[in-house]
Amino acid sequence: MNSFWQDNPRMMNHLFEVNGVIEQSMTVKQEKMNEILQDLAKSGGKRVRPGLCLIGAGFGAKSFKSIYPLAAVVEMLHLATLVHDDIIDDATHRRGSLTTQKKYGKDYAVYTGDYIFTKCFELLAKNYELHHMRELSRAVSRVCVGEIEQFDGRFKTHDSVKKYLKIVGAKTSALLATSLAIGAYEAGCDEKLCRKLGKIGLHLGNAFQIIDDILDYKGDTSRVGKTLGNDLKQGYYTLPLIYALKTDDAHLNELLSKGHYDDADVQKIIERVDELGGIDQALELAQKYTKKSLKEISALPSCQARDDLEWIVKKLLKRDH
Amino acid sequence: MNSFWQDNPRMMNHLFEVNGVIEQSMTVKQEKMNEILQDLAKSGGKRVRPGLCLIGAGFGAKSFKSIYPLAAVVEMLHLATLVHDDIIDDATHRRGSLTTQKKYGKDYAVYTGDYIFTKCFELLAKNYELHHMRELSRAVSRVCVGEIEQFDGRFKTHDSVKKYLKIVGAKTSALLATSLAIGAYEAGCDEKLCRKLGKIGLHLGNAFQIIDDILDYKGDTSRVGKTLGNDLKQGYYTLPLIYALKTDDAHLNELLSKGHYDDADVQKIIERVDELGGIDQALELAQKYTKKSLKEISALPSCQARDDLEWIVKKLLKRDH
Repeated sequence: MNSFWQDNPRMMNHLFEVNGVIEQSMTVKQEKMNEILQDLAKSGGKRVRPGLCLIGAGFGAKSFKSIYPLAAVVEMLHLATLVHDDIIDDATHRRGSLTTQKKYGKDYAVYTGDYIFTKCFELLAKNYELHHMRELSRAVSRVCVGEIEQFDGRFKTHDSVKKYLKIVGAKTSALLATSLAIGAYEAGCDEKLCRKLGKIGLHLGNAFQIIDDILDYKGDTSRVGKTLGNDLKQGYYTLPLIYALKTDDAHLNELLSKGHYDDADVQKIIERVDELGGIDQALELAQKYTKKSLKEISALPSCQARDDLEWIVKKLLKRDH
Repeated sequence: MNSFWQDNPRMMNHLFEVNGVIEQSMTVKQEKMNEILQDLAKSGGKRVRPGLCLIGAGFGAKSFKSIYPLAAVVEMLHLATLVHDDIIDDATHRRGSLTTQKKYGKDYAVYTGDYIFTKCFELLAKNYELHHMRELSRAVSRVCVGEIEQFDGRFKTHDSVKKYLKIVGAKTSALLATSLAIGAYEAGCDEKLCRKLGKIGLHLGNAFQIIDDILDYKGDTSRVGKTLGNDLKQGYYTLPLIYALKTDDAHLNELLSKGHYDDADVQKIIERVDELGGIDQALELAQKYTKKSLKEISALPSCQARDDLEWIVKKLLKRDH
């Protein structure tokens, strides 16, 4: 786990336990697969989804221990999608380490992702009622459709903010919202509260993804762990660019018309998007979603879990990690 | 559906209904994904797994209609693994049509497989109790580990029959056996009968895969729909070759030592394997498994389902399609 949780040691301790469940669940006899899975289990990451799952459970009455497998599952589902995303994007690095597809080959990466997916459903079937299965399978279906929609939309300059948000909702926010809501459900919270938490999770997810996309345009590359303009090079036109394109700027359109960008092109596009206010507008929308979720959080019953939720939303907003 | 079921019109009618559920379950709003999914749903195939699921259910007391979604799920899980297998093997054709990875690209194929996997679990969670989820997720986990083990063992000449059967059990027989057993379970059969059917399914699966592997060495290519020596070229050393290698034949070892085989090499290897009795020995083992399953079937209570099961086992043995 990286430094994300260091100023919330109570949650960090629980997440260490969740990490233990993840490492154990990703242990198999087959040597090669075990090597790949353990590599992945120990590859770090902020553990936002299991954190949200535990925070959701904090609104209820069950011990956190019974939530650990569920929290492990939401992270493992995320890991499975990352392994497959890296195949699509031909990504060489993630979190500063070689990706599975780079280190072991695309072949192993396909089956590794599949294995983790099905292992998650095995864990769910073993430990929990059908409810979580229903919610999580729906969330992951949405992730897949969102990813296809995003991939299908590469290099298209006419995409709207609405479509962008639809994709973000599917590929990112759905799983974050579900993580929070099913944690609460498992801990015995009533449906109304679970729905509210789910809604907060969606706002949080939107803010989270918009900020992530902004980091492709502006960010300390050594801390973000990836280079700028990565999405852009692959034809993923995210919110800053979508806003900038709304100005119908001749210079930006000309820069984009090449359809294939080297480092110098990317540099120029990023600069122009910034000049046209695209980055600021995107940041504004992220802040709008964050404020929305903070407002809804403040209306929740006062408790430790509410404080934790407020803490994580604020932490994710200030994100440059 | 192809001609496999044509002399069992009663089962074929049920499988038409299952096909309807598959096509409906693989319908999504996102245009591109829908195109790919519908292509797949209508791409044919023998529908052995849903057939086994329905036959299993025939041993119980429920109407077949309530089994259709379950039968659809076992076929869709198989389809998902095929889509991903074709990425690994860089396969251009399956069942006489272009593969998803060839027609749409590996990127789309990865997410399409993922979508089908999760859709299956969504369907299970919506329609059935946890039992099937547990059994099927375990079976699919085994498929993934089996596929990795097989991939990891490419071009290795020291593999034993035991290891070959372990891989076959994981990548093929587990899902066939589970299809048969969960159909029976869903229709209210007792655990003892479900276990028996599961065992028969394992024998049947072994016979089925061995024959499939033999078809890479010997078969009417126009009917099989694929060229000979395909597995061999990719370094998958299956049962006929494993048996032939046991003779420690200098000529065969020399042929294999190249580690990369063109059409002429493949031709020579196949001929030598045949001369050394590898194909016959493999066929013998397939027949042994078939006889085993037929013997166990004959001990089952006499009913329509028992006749259907006997019919499919015999049909799969005589397979050149």
